[in-house]
Amino acid sequence: MSLGEFDIIARYFAGHGSRRDVLLGIGDDAAVLEVPAGRRLVVAMDTVAAGVHYPAGTAAADIGYRSLAVNLSDLAAMGAVPSWMTLSLSLPAARADWLEGFAGGLFQLADRHAVALIGGDTIRGPEVVTVQIAGWVEADGWMTRSGARPGDLVYVSGVPGEAAAGLAVIQSPLPGPTSKSGQAAAEHLRQRFLRPEPRVPLGRALRGIASAAMDVSDGLLTDLGKLCAASGCGATLDTDALPESAAMRSLFDAAAVLDFALAGGDDYELLFTVPAERVSLLAALGSEVPCTCIGVVTEGQGAEGQGAEGQGAEGQRVICLCAGQVLPLRRQGHDHFGS
Amino acid sequence: MSLGEFDIIARYFAGHGSRRDVLLGIGDDAAVLEVPAGRRLVVAMDTVAAGVHYPAGTAAADIGYRSLAVNLSDLAAMGAVPSWMTLSLSLPAARADWLEGFAGGLFQLADRHAVALIGGDTIRGPEVVTVQIAGWVEADGWMTRSGARPGDLVYVSGVPGEAAAGLAVIQSPLPGPTSKSGQAAAEHLRQRFLRPEPRVPLGRALRGIASAAMDVSDGLLTDLGKLCAASGCGATLDTDALPESAAMRSLFDAAAVLDFALAGGDDYELLFTVPAERVSLLAALGSEVPCTCIGVVTEGQGAEGQGAEGQGAEGQRVICLCAGQVLPLRRQGHDHFGS
Repeated sequence: MSLGEFDIIARYFAGHGSRRDVLLGIGDDAAVLEVPAGRRLVVAMDTVAAGVHYPAGTAAADIGYRSLAVNLSDLAAMGAVPSWMTLSLSLPAARADWLEGFAGGLFQLADRHAVALIGGDTIRGPEVVTVQIAGWVEADGWMTRSGARPGDLVYVSGVPGEAAAGLAVIQSPLPGPTSKSGQAAAEHLRQRFLRPEPRVPLGRALRGIASAAMDVSDGLLTDLGKLCAASGCGATLDTDALPESAAMRSLFDAAAVLDFALAGGDDYELLFTVPAERVSLLAALGSEVPCTCIGVVTEGQGAEGQGAEGQGAEGQRVICLCAGQVLPLRRQGHDHFGS
Repeated sequence: MSLGEFDIIARYFAGHGSRRDVLLGIGDDAAVLEVPAGRRLVVAMDTVAAGVHYPAGTAAADIGYRSLAVNLSDLAAMGAVPSWMTLSLSLPAARADWLEGFAGGLFQLADRHAVALIGGDTIRGPEVVTVQIAGWVEADGWMTRSGARPGDLVYVSGVPGEAAAGLAVIQSPLPGPTSKSGQAAAEHLRQRFLRPEPRVPLGRALRGIASAAMDVSDGLLTDLGKLCAASGCGATLDTDALPESAAMRSLFDAAAVLDFALAGGDDYELLFTVPAERVSLLAALGSEVPCTCIGVVTEGQGAEGQGAEGQGAEGQRVICLCAGQVLPLRRQGHDHFGS
């Protein structure tokens, strides 16, 4: 089935929800938007491709959901309110069932966060999906990766590692007949990979509490290393403090569980630091998402003149303790272009 | 050669130019930007892929230039000032020479328009490039496709068709030895395809003069049909009034030249309508880019309840006259997903 470009937009992507700050939406050369007075614009962009960010054969609805979720997660890490998205869809063919599924997953999440699709592009090409998200934050009210200071406590939301465990389950389904609880655990983990919950409300709540924040997409250790590099400090991570996952423990041995938690990517949880004097504010939040203290920010091993994104020595900025012993680092996190 | 993702950003794309309204740029989860007070945000996104928007083998510098040019052209059509871009780069491999060339072409144009790269994503995948551009326009000061009214005059900037002729030259190089003037004409046309000049200053100048505007990317006839559909009107286009192209005439016969001008895409000129009483304002502009009156807006053949992007009857909204005779329409413009 072949659809025209304009048919695709009109049939699957136009007219979803509405926002009064969209002064001109899909259908012209560009969209015109009204950023609330006194607010700052916050912008992120993420691209997902089959075989890179999700296994080939992933349901279109899951791809649609995920392509927005990873972007919302970036805005959550800034403490921003998401408002508008643009979508670039490169597809080898315009299959109606795929488009319907994709749009369904995309808008399921978009509608929950009141995000409007305001433009984009559809082309015939290899399967690559790019979503660009924009939103706003109060002037001087955003969080960055660079504000952590020695003595701050390190927190993570949710249960890091479950998404990577879910991907492992998807890629190597459990052999033979499995118990009902095993099936439930496998399904729980699969959903954690396929349908990550961007922590937007938590990100908003952390403004004024967290000294630094980022989302966990490349693995806890790698991302904590990045936060430390941006902040010019180090960190000690206590693996015994990591949140327990009954689902992971029921399907994998302890070494694998630790590996997922430290090096697995795709969690889209928030990793953040809190000065000791503000820990009570965090407790008072009563966040629906559990937040666990997993370590402490240290002076680190010198800044070495590296930029915020400086690769290489990042892992060395973080020391992992397991039962009081320093854990040797085995795996690095994800780097799409790494060899 | 394999480069890490963060190396790519740091080496080729970070630290180019600077803008005071970029409060937080590349390197964090998202960028934070300051939209000028009282202005509206204008946003567009375009994706280009090898073999779809440019021939395989196109120089990386030309791809970099073009991926931004097509976006700047969208903002030009709105009368907006471009400010910031985000870039998604999906590449099979991170080749240093390709990245250097791409960044060179991209920033050559970006620097000319003072556009800052404020974020994006690089992934290993099939070659697909998406640029998202954002800028601003005065409140209520933007142009749309939908403001044309019967009696308005139809204008186009530059020389439509030369880009398509340039693509034809690239795809079928001139056979045998060619005269010096023929070579110069071929090179002129090639550059018009590879390095379109986004009409940003003209777009700014047309605010308050043009009743409707869009950029010509899919071909003059198709795009005029879209403008008419959005405005609920029709148009008569006088092919005898089309701007002359000595370069096209020297290399192609009259029928091919007319075909390029009417149906060729990729011009990225501005197509706009001007109420009769404002034509003197247009003349007074003294625009560096020649603008040619090529037709008139008519009542059209009924709105038929179609949306602005409604495909199918758009071509019928435009009547082409050639020496006073109605020209039969042979080709439609570009539709990436059309069969």
